[in-house]
Parts: sequence; structure tokens; C-alpha cells
Amino acid sequence: MSAPLVRRLALIGIGLIGSSLARVARKEGLAEKIVISTRSAETLRRAEELGLGDRYCLDAGEAVEDADLVIVSVPVGASGAVAKWIAPSLKPGAILTDAGSTKRSVIEQMAPHVPEGVHFIPGHPIAGTEQSGPDAGFAELFRNRWCILTPPEGTDPAAIARLTAFWEGCGSTVDTMDAEHHDLVLAIVSHLPHIIAYNIVGTADDLEAVTKSEVIKYSASGFRDFTRLAASDPTMWRDVCLYNKDAILEMLARFSEDLAALQRAIRWSDGDKLFDIFTRTREIRRSIVEAGQDTAVPNFGRDMAQAEAGE
Amino acid sequence: MSAPLVRRLALIGIGLIGSSLARVARKEGLAEKIVISTRSAETLRRAEELGLGDRYCLDAGEAVEDADLVIVSVPVGASGAVAKWIAPSLKPGAILTDAGSTKRSVIEQMAPHVPEGVHFIPGHPIAGTEQSGPDAGFAELFRNRWCILTPPEGTDPAAIARLTAFWEGCGSTVDTMDAEHHDLVLAIVSHLPHIIAYNIVGTADDLEAVTKSEVIKYSASGFRDFTRLAASDPTMWRDVCLYNKDAILEMLARFSEDLAALQRAIRWSDGDKLFDIFTRTREIRRSIVEAGQDTAVPNFGRDMAQAEAGE
Ligand SMILES: NC(=O)c1ccc[n+]([C@@H]2O[C@H](COP(=O)([O-])OP(=O)(O)OC[C@H]3O[C@@H](n4cnc5c(N)ncnc54)[C@H](OP(=O)(O)O)[C@@H]3O)[C@@H](O)[C@H]2O)c1
Ligand SMILES: NC(=O)c1ccc[n+]([C@@H]2O[C@H](COP(=O)([O-])OP(=O)(O)OC[C@H]3O[C@@H](n4cnc5c(N)ncnc54)[C@H](OP(=O)(O)O)[C@@H]3O)[C@@H](O)[C@H]2O)c1
Repeated sequence: MSAPLVRRLALIGIGLIGSSLARVARKEGLAEKIVISTRSAETLRRAEELGLGDRYCLDAGEAVEDADLVIVSVPVGASGAVAKWIAPSLKPGAILTDAGSTKRSVIEQMAPHVPEGVHFIPGHPIAGTEQSGPDAGFAELFRNRWCILTPPEGTDPAAIARLTAFWEGCGSTVDTMDAEHHDLVLAIVSHLPHIIAYNIVGTADDLEAVTKSEVIKYSASGFRDFTRLAASDPTMWRDVCLYNKDAILEMLARFSEDLAALQRAIRWSDGDKLFDIFTRTREIRRSIVEAGQDTAVPNFGRDMAQAEAGE
Repeated sequence: MSAPLVRRLALIGIGLIGSSLARVARKEGLAEKIVISTRSAETLRRAEELGLGDRYCLDAGEAVEDADLVIVSVPVGASGAVAKWIAPSLKPGAILTDAGSTKRSVIEQMAPHVPEGVHFIPGHPIAGTEQSGPDAGFAELFRNRWCILTPPEGTDPAAIARLTAFWEGCGSTVDTMDAEHHDLVLAIVSHLPHIIAYNIVGTADDLEAVTKSEVIKYSASGFRDFTRLAASDPTMWRDVCLYNKDAILEMLARFSEDLAALQRAIRWSDGDKLFDIFTRTREIRRSIVEAGQDTAVPNFGRDMAQAEAGE
């Protein structure tokens, strides 16, 4: 076996993403030593119980001392404070990256604190689940998924290559793009779907004419699909909305425009128009399945999962 | 083993629903003889190749002759024509039901044709997948799901009891309610989710700034969840929109109102409001899982399904 890619890996934040990184780094031998830091003593203790790392520090500054690779995995609104805290302890030549779901704002928050000689390469793994915290992570989370890096112009190519190799070691394929484009792409593929899911679940919850028990009983007819995304962490999604506001508002405006057209077609009983709208969307599902980004098994294969979990 | 519940079962329409009924009826011994009819010679041949029934007729009238239970499973817009066709051949004492996703309109279309002495009990199994046609069906589709019946006032209780026993034999639990309430409940738990899913997939498809390939690659961050519902049969969903217009427009109006409020909270960076909206939706997910209507496994367990299907 070859030497680990990273001598000392520091993970700041040990929730779903941080703990999945710890697990895959351990499993694939990507780091010689894993140092873990998180905001609360409680989460840190849990990480230790789970044996996720080799050292545990409440002090994030202490955690990054002598680290070759530092990955910050906290809600995007906390990026600035974390950067400020760890900056004085980062060693020259270290790579500093993050996993935040928005990139322009993370750069605005973190970049001013990054010391000369440290390679700051913002990142975002396109992988996740609706669960949070150190117990929710698993080593396979990043397998066959994409990871987007948004290195500022002039970033050392050797540092990008090292970070790329790390993500490939996690099972991912790396794409690079500029932060602005990242934020636009993610606004449509991730942020809008979550916002819409939260909204529809809220609408259903508010009805007087239909009881909550009816919504739950009959949810297998479509509604349940939205409740998964709408069960995601509120802090993370609050921050995404606050820190990718412009792109999200742009996508919301387009969505609402299209919905108005669809609504009009329903109101005027325009069957041909409805049939057209409902036909063109099938191809994209096929492409996603062919690209290995979802299962072809009906109903996402959830019946299988339910049976296996003995639910 | 006791005698089958039904001597002669006629299935009109042999797509996802009809063929699942054929399979479960055979598997559970619910009918002595299964007669199948569908619009096209091609689908009828496929049903025969799959061995779904005991007799196959292109003539729906012929298929229902002497049947004790007739189940119509065709797009709701076709209910009237089918009822007109089969009405003269229905035998006195037979039960006539359907599987259509809307109920008020199906009753308006079918009831005028139903001859005296035939028990007309509209129904709707709350179970399905995004696939269509006779190959898509499976015997377990209705297991642990609800089936809603909307018998008109004055329906013979013995006939309702017989139909209830049939659905219970399919693994379902039966609820009864009036057709109007059914249409309102389904508008929120099924019709709105499908319409919103179709809409968001359409919005993504139309963007110039984000390519289709980007949408596909990064879809695991949320978008893919919507593409499943948006891959459903366009004819079925066109008909649902045309035939449950009022309830759907009502739900769309509420959804848009709520979305406007959420949009405002994003525009004004109202973090507390966003946090509140994103918090109250978690409980409903938990309740759905507890009610056995979805799996607790993260990501709907689709990774498990993908691995097992060797995708
Ligand atoms: N979840 C996903 O599907 C997903 C996918 C891709 C990217 N991301 C991004 O990855 C990052 C982490 O997400 P996650 O799902 O791993 O979250 P998570 O499971 O909720 O874990 C969050 C971690 O951040 C810490 N934290 C929370 N608030 C903090 C604050 N104000 N200051 C410092 N630390 C704080 C938590 O510490 P304590 O528990 O000790 O308080 C915990 O260690 C986020 O930026 C998110 O946008 C998430
Ligand atoms: N799919 C679901 O998830 C689901 C769930 C609950 C209820 N439902 C309801 O169940 C019914 C059937 O849905 P499905 O999913 O089984 O559909 P499907 O798989 O598309 O099958 C439709 C069946 O209806 C026949 N048909 C289509 N158009 C017709 C017409 N104009 N006149 C006569 N027959 C016609 C088809 O015949 P040919 O193939 O021979 O043309 C086929 O046998 C619909 O009312 C739907 O609303 C569906």
C-alpha cells in the first residue's frame, strides 16, 4: 500500500459531511492522522465514542496546527468565524477547503482571513442525505458522486491536484468551475428543490379542510417524496437561503412564471398544452438514471429498503 | 383454502393498476376466473404473453358479461366512454368499480350509464409507481396501502362489504368518504406534488445559463427526487388536471401564497422566519415513516436498491 495522501487531516465540523469524510479517510487510508474539532463538547464526545479520529479538540485553532489538509464542514453562515479562529494556526503550504453548499459567500467570508502561503480551495461535495450529525455519516456517501471545486484564479495547480486526489480517494469525480456559476447551478439543482419541498409540506400542514392524519395516510400517492427533503437540517437551509439569495430569487422567479403558465393551462382546460408539459420531463429522468445518479427501480426502491429494514 | 371472493373478475384496462390487480388476484386466489380487456390489440397481446388472465377480449362489453366484479383502470377522461360501452352487458347484482385518481368527475361520467341493479362503487387505490403498462405491475403494489371508496348514498352495504373484502385481499385497508372530499385530499397529497414536480423539472430544462448535463450530473443534491414523479404517465396526469380542476386550482393558489411569503423572507434575509418554516416540516416526515408509508433509510434507501440492481 502506498503512503497516505495526507499526513495530518483536520476536520472542522463533524456532522453528516465531516463524519463521512472521517470514515472514508480512515477506511481508504487517505490520512495518517485525523484530528477532529466541533463547536460543542457534546458532539465532540460523540465523535470520540464513534472512534472517528485520532485526536479531538474543542479548540479549532489547536486542531489545525501542523495539518496539511483542513476541511471545514459547518453551516455556511459560520464559515467566516471559523476561518478567523483557525487562520493564525494554519501552517504554510497547508490546503484549506470547505464543504459548504454555497461558494461565493463562503469565499467572501473566509478569504480575508487566509494567511499568505496557505492554499484556499473552496469545495462542495454533491452528496448528502436528509440526516445530520456525526451518527448520520457513512464512508460511501461520496462514492460515484461529483465534487465541485471553485479555486480562485492563480491557485497553485499542484495544490488543486492534491485536493482532487483526496476527493478521488473518497470515490468522487472532481469538477472545477467559478464560484458564481456554482451558485447558479446549485440554486436550480439543490436549493430550489429544497425550498419547494419545504413549502409544499408547509401548505399541506396548514389546511383546515384536510386533516394531518389524512395527509400522512395517503402520502404514498406523491406527497411523501417531498417530505424527505423537507426533513433536512433547518440551520443549514436557513444559511443556504441567506447566503445564496440572488441566485435563489432568480430561480424562484422562473419557477413561479412557469407555474403560472401551467396554472393557466389547467384553468382553461388546455389538454394539449398539459400533455406537452408532462411529456418533455421524462427524458431527464432517464438521463439521470443512465448517469448513475439515481436508481431505475420504481419508487426509488424504497419498498425494498423498507422490507430489509424490517419496517 | 376458502372459495375465491369473486367468481368472475373483469379488468378493463391492464396497465400498472390493472395488471397489478390481475397479479394479486391470481396470487391470493381472489377470483375464480380473470377476464382482461384493454383498448389496443398490442397491450392485450402483451397481457396474454405475461399470462395475466384466463380470457382476453378486445371487446370490453364481452369481457364484463357474467362478471361479478368489474374494475375499470383507465385514464379518468376515458371513464365515460368505457361505462357506456360495458353498461348493456353488466349483469344484475354485479359490482362496478374503478381505480381512477379523481372521483367526482368519474361519477359524473359513469353513473348515468350504470343500469339498475348494478352496484356502482367508485374507488381509488392510494398506491402506484412512476411506471406504466402491463409490465410495470406487481402483486405487492397494494400491500400496506390505503384504498379509498366513495360509494354514493344508498349503496347496498353488502356490496361495499364485498368490495372491501376484495381490497383487503389485495393487502390494503379500506376507507370510505364522499367523492368531493376525496378530490380535495388527493389534490394536496398527490396532484399538487406531481404538478410541482413537473413544473420544476421543466424550469430546469429551460435554463440557458445552466446546461442539461450539469443538471443531470449534480442532480443527487435534491433535483433527482422530483424527476421520479415528473416521469409519470402524461395522459394520466393530463386527465387528472382536467378532471379535478377546481380542487387543484385551490391548492395551487395556497401553495403560491405560501411561496410568496417564503420568497419575501429570503429577499429580506429574515433568518428567524426561514428557520421556523424549515423546522415545522420535520415532524410530518417522522409521522409518515411511523405510519409505515415510507422508509426511514436515508435517501429512500435508493443506494441499496442501486447496488442490488447492479446499476
Ligand atoms: N447535508 C448535506 O446533504 C450536505 C451536502 C453537501 C454539503 N453540505 C454542506 O456541508 C456543511 C455541513 O453540513 P452537514 O450536513 O455536515 O451539517 P450537520 O450534520 O448539521 O453538522 C454541522 C457541523 O457544524 C457544526 N456547527 C454548527 N453550527 C456551527 C457554528 N455556528 N459554528 C461552528 N460550527 C458549527 C456542528 O457542530 P456541533 O454539533 O458541535 O454544534 C457540526 O459539527 C454545510 O455547509 C452544508 O451546506 C451539506
Ligand atoms: N399510476 C398510478 O400511480 C396510479 C395510482 C392510483 C390510481 N391510478 C389511476 O388508475 C388508472 C389507470 O392508471 P395506470 O397507471 O394503470 O395507467 P397505464 O399503466 O397507463 O394503463 C392504462 C390502461 O388504460 C387503457 N387506456 C388508455 N387510454 C384509454 C382510452 N382512451 N380508452 C380506453 N382505455 C384506455 C390502456 O390501454 P392500451 O394500453 O391498450 O391503450 C391501459 O390498459 C388511471 O385512472 C389512474 O388515474 C394510477
